Amino acid sequence: VDLGRLGETGFLDELVRRHAGVMPPPPLGPGDDASVLGALLLTADALIEDEHFRSREPASLIGRKALSVNLSDIAAMGGTPRAFLSCIGLPPRTPSSFVRELTDGIAAVAAEHRVAWIGGDTVRSDLGIVIAITVVGERGRSLLLRSGARPGDGIYVTGPLGAPAAGRALLDRGWKPARRDATPPGRRRAAAAARRRNAELMRSQLDPAPRIAAGRFLASARLASAAIDLSDGLSLDLHRLCRASGAGAMIVAESIPISQATRSFARENRVDPLRLALDGGEDYELLFTVPSRAERRLSRWPLRDGTGPLLIGRVLPRAAGILIEDASGRRRSLRPAGYDAFRRRGSRATR
Amino acid sequence: VDLGRLGETGFLDELVRRHAGVMPPPPLGPGDDASVLGALLLTADALIEDEHFRSREPASLIGRKALSVNLSDIAAMGGTPRAFLSCIGLPPRTPSSFVRELTDGIAAVAAEHRVAWIGGDTVRSDLGIVIAITVVGERGRSLLLRSGARPGDGIYVTGPLGAPAAGRALLDRGWKPARRDATPPGRRRAAAAARRRNAELMRSQLDPAPRIAAGRFLASARLASAAIDLSDGLSLDLHRLCRASGAGAMIVAESIPISQATRSFARENRVDPLRLALDGGEDYELLFTVPSRAERRLSRWPLRDGTGPLLIGRVLPRAAGILIEDASGRRRSLRPAGYDAFRRRGSRATR
Repeated sequence: VDLGRLGETGFLDELVRRHAGVMPPPPLGPGDDASVLGALLLTADALIEDEHFRSREPASLIGRKALSVNLSDIAAMGGTPRAFLSCIGLPPRTPSSFVRELTDGIAAVAAEHRVAWIGGDTVRSDLGIVIAITVVGERGRSLLLRSGARPGDGIYVTGPLGAPAAGRALLDRGWKPARRDATPPGRRRAAAAARRRNAELMRSQLDPAPRIAAGRFLASARLASAAIDLSDGLSLDLHRLCRASGAGAMIVAESIPISQATRSFARENRVDPLRLALDGGEDYELLFTVPSRAERRLSRWPLRDGTGPLLIGRVLPRAAGILIEDASGRRRSLRPAGYDAFRRRGSRATR
Repeated sequence: VDLGRLGETGFLDELVRRHAGVMPPPPLGPGDDASVLGALLLTADALIEDEHFRSREPASLIGRKALSVNLSDIAAMGGTPRAFLSCIGLPPRTPSSFVRELTDGIAAVAAEHRVAWIGGDTVRSDLGIVIAITVVGERGRSLLLRSGARPGDGIYVTGPLGAPAAGRALLDRGWKPARRDATPPGRRRAAAAARRRNAELMRSQLDPAPRIAAGRFLASARLASAAIDLSDGLSLDLHRLCRASGAGAMIVAESIPISQATRSFARENRVDPLRLALDGGEDYELLFTVPSRAERRLSRWPLRDGTGPLLIGRVLPRAAGILIEDASGRRRSLRPAGYDAFRRRGSRATR
């Protein structure tokens, strides 16, 4: 048996099962986006070179993303991030300009969200670049967990999905976030439009916005019955939320928000935009559920940060399974085909 | 300019300088062993394959050490560790037995010190094995900082130094922690003694004991004016403590505690045991200073864990520099030749 077959989810479950009772029990335990320790929320995520980023990508954006994805976990719990620690492993020949841009990127996101850099460790890593960040947050008025969804609740996301997966595909083909124009004059207008579109898609991949304000609003208004951040793709993360809640779900394909840029990319590359939105991953929007009696209060969404409550489906009893309804009204089972760190089932839509 | 020339210490200083004012100020800031956040202590350390361990070493000991070195940082601040998060990066072909032993090792140390495993992240890392751990602790009755040493204070360590560096040299030569006997009968007794000695040295390298009880005692009795854990070697860590305190120091070579096993290894390998103790690193004993008026209270050392207050020198005014006195009474400048992650100045005594 190797880890490739065990898979990440299985690995964590196994770890918790094996060590239950050996140590003091975790207050909440792994399985939610962050851990609860008294009034605090704690979360840790690692980014590994060639797995989560490429060293040729702009270092400042690598830094921004490293912190943002951790802030996203605090957002998914309805908390406010306050401080963080970094563990950075660097090959000894790393140019100091790369290091400066990397830490500038981390610091810029920290400043935007008023989070203090309180410490960490810098180590030599001949293997490649490794960035592990731990964020400490404060609990909001209520705690958003994965486990509270009940049949009848509406299922929402905070923004369009699929663009980061398209951006990843462009980056893998060698596109640069700010590419120079080398197009003949006659085709310049169309090329400029494609360039703007591609820049938008790559930016969504390289610089995700953690939905902290949305999470805080949902927690303080006690609107959401459950929440998770969409790190590994809607299909997999919806399965996680449903498993934690002991529920089923039905989502409507037509209602899943997909940007014009993502649709245009999908058309040009002959991939199904729905697959990008379901399985692409790294969206970092929040997926949340709202009891039906509270849904009308969502119309008073107070944020002007591009987020909004976008209804995509409804929670069902567990026995119903997890379904997707297509444009012709047919329902089929939704496979959890998103990103699993160890499985790589070839499930990423654009690979 | 590359990171190799900048060095780890310079890198962290630069980072703090550049980002001062951009973010909320850190409560205490990098530079101490752990960061202070209200009543909490937080520390993060990363272990990288081939830099901090080899994958052929027993996985359970890799796991033990990964957590122990982080607990040591909390010990150096006089705190009590309460919980931790792990970021573990693994190549997909890692055998599941390795993963099980690794996490068993982490869990065993957690159980010994009653620390809860509250979460983390497991990611694919084709680069190699990466283990980053963040520990959350509680402050003790007082806070042990690096910055409180004053001229006249006694300088102490909690145990003998140099054995882990000898153990690292044995492991690098292919010794196994539990080696089978392949010696001809006539030389068996001497070989068995050497084997026991080597096992002791390797164990000290692979399974350091975090001095949590000693740190708690020093903090609760308000005995220490300053403290640091000896991760990178006495010579470098003494420089760090003195720089933070704005002080100089004089240590006496003859009084530096070195075990029989380390002396025997040094004799056999024609290295200076003092160099192992000064520059070898990874001792994870505490280095601490005690105001002279309080030193007599050290005789009531309450611990039966192998630790004790071992006097090695005295704090001097900054202008005196940092000195070492040899057996003939000659004093010379003590070079900070310990481990710096990026410099690798060939300073490790046994390399």
